[in-house]
Amino acid sequence: MEQIPGPTKERLLYLMRLLEQAAGQGAITSAQIEALTGWASHTVRKDISLLGAAISGEGDTGAVGSSAGYAPEALIPLIKKALDLEKRRKFCVVGLGRLGSAYLNAPVLPDSEFELAAGFDTNVNRTEILASSVPLYPAYKMGEVISRFGIEIALLCVPVEAAQSAADKLAAAGIRGILNFAPVLISVSPGIAVQNVYLDDELRALSIKIKGD
Amino acid sequence: MEQIPGPTKERLLYLMRLLEQAAGQGAITSAQIEALTGWASHTVRKDISLLGAAISGEGDTGAVGSSAGYAPEALIPLIKKALDLEKRRKFCVVGLGRLGSAYLNAPVLPDSEFELAAGFDTNVNRTEILASSVPLYPAYKMGEVISRFGIEIALLCVPVEAAQSAADKLAAAGIRGILNFAPVLISVSPGIAVQNVYLDDELRALSIKIKGD
Repeated sequence: MEQIPGPTKERLLYLMRLLEQAAGQGAITSAQIEALTGWASHTVRKDISLLGAAISGEGDTGAVGSSAGYAPEALIPLIKKALDLEKRRKFCVVGLGRLGSAYLNAPVLPDSEFELAAGFDTNVNRTEILASSVPLYPAYKMGEVISRFGIEIALLCVPVEAAQSAADKLAAAGIRGILNFAPVLISVSPGIAVQNVYLDDELRALSIKIKGD
Repeated sequence: MEQIPGPTKERLLYLMRLLEQAAGQGAITSAQIEALTGWASHTVRKDISLLGAAISGEGDTGAVGSSAGYAPEALIPLIKKALDLEKRRKFCVVGLGRLGSAYLNAPVLPDSEFELAAGFDTNVNRTEILASSVPLYPAYKMGEVISRFGIEIALLCVPVEAAQSAADKLAAAGIRGILNFAPVLISVSPGIAVQNVYLDDELRALSIKIKGD
């Protein structure tokens, strides 16, 4: 997937969510996408043209676009494929306090491409007592379990003061991406992707939608 | 704030996060912003020009931009003000299961403009037993408490099957925005802002950053 630059990937992901919301409402033009997103329509067209190159053997993306616009039903699967979102990925939960144990139980949407595979905690009482549909392990088994199950992603749900050392252990265990729920920045090698999940960001995004202030 | 259109607000919020990351690194030009975001540089300039109009009495925004670009330190406070993010807003947690009680305890970043004010649950045992720095109430008191405390935002942390009825109660109580953590769409009147928080969206955003697939 390296032929698609990062900013293009971000735009395609956002575009996919817009298209999922617009599915069934007919074609959408690059001018309409510009009005919704502010992306220049030539940028949108260029982003979409990269899909064809990224999916070798699939031909170009002419089939999904015409002068009438792009058909969401045709474009969504192409974006999913180009962003490698069709790939089933396993994730684990690290830190089984309240937040972590919440994600053990109601993790993902139906038909999700993500699969919860395991949970970890340094406190063995927790891993023995908590009810879970997936196996729970003491933290020292991370390396073995992550490699055996092919787990790529970790939800980091430990307290702030434990976040960096847990991230270090995950890095040593070969994790490829960390969703960091601890409200602190963690430092990992450049080969590991990190996405911070801050409640403040969600609250701000909601606030700007509140009307009539 | 009604003079700033919704898509512009979304872009300004995203731009503010980029600027916060770039603070201390000098000015950023609209061409650099275009390269990072894909937004046409004329769109960026127009968005920023709207800030002056939105902040009455503050003059125009010429002071933050020059041919050398925009100074993050000058632009961030203007965006915060224009998006009304300086306003302190109170929020509550509805549904005190694992996820809800996690947010009762470690809710926001230091210096956050958001303040946790109360928690609610239909189960009175929970509201009586849970440890919390804010008062907890049975769900039937929502109307009274939300109005008395001036609570504007609710984190909806109830199970899927209870989400719509809890949203209806919040609407009747005068809530202005809902962060919906239940993996189901809720329906509310157009005057109430809703932002869905899905783990799948975060997992997808992380996935596209994972290298070398």
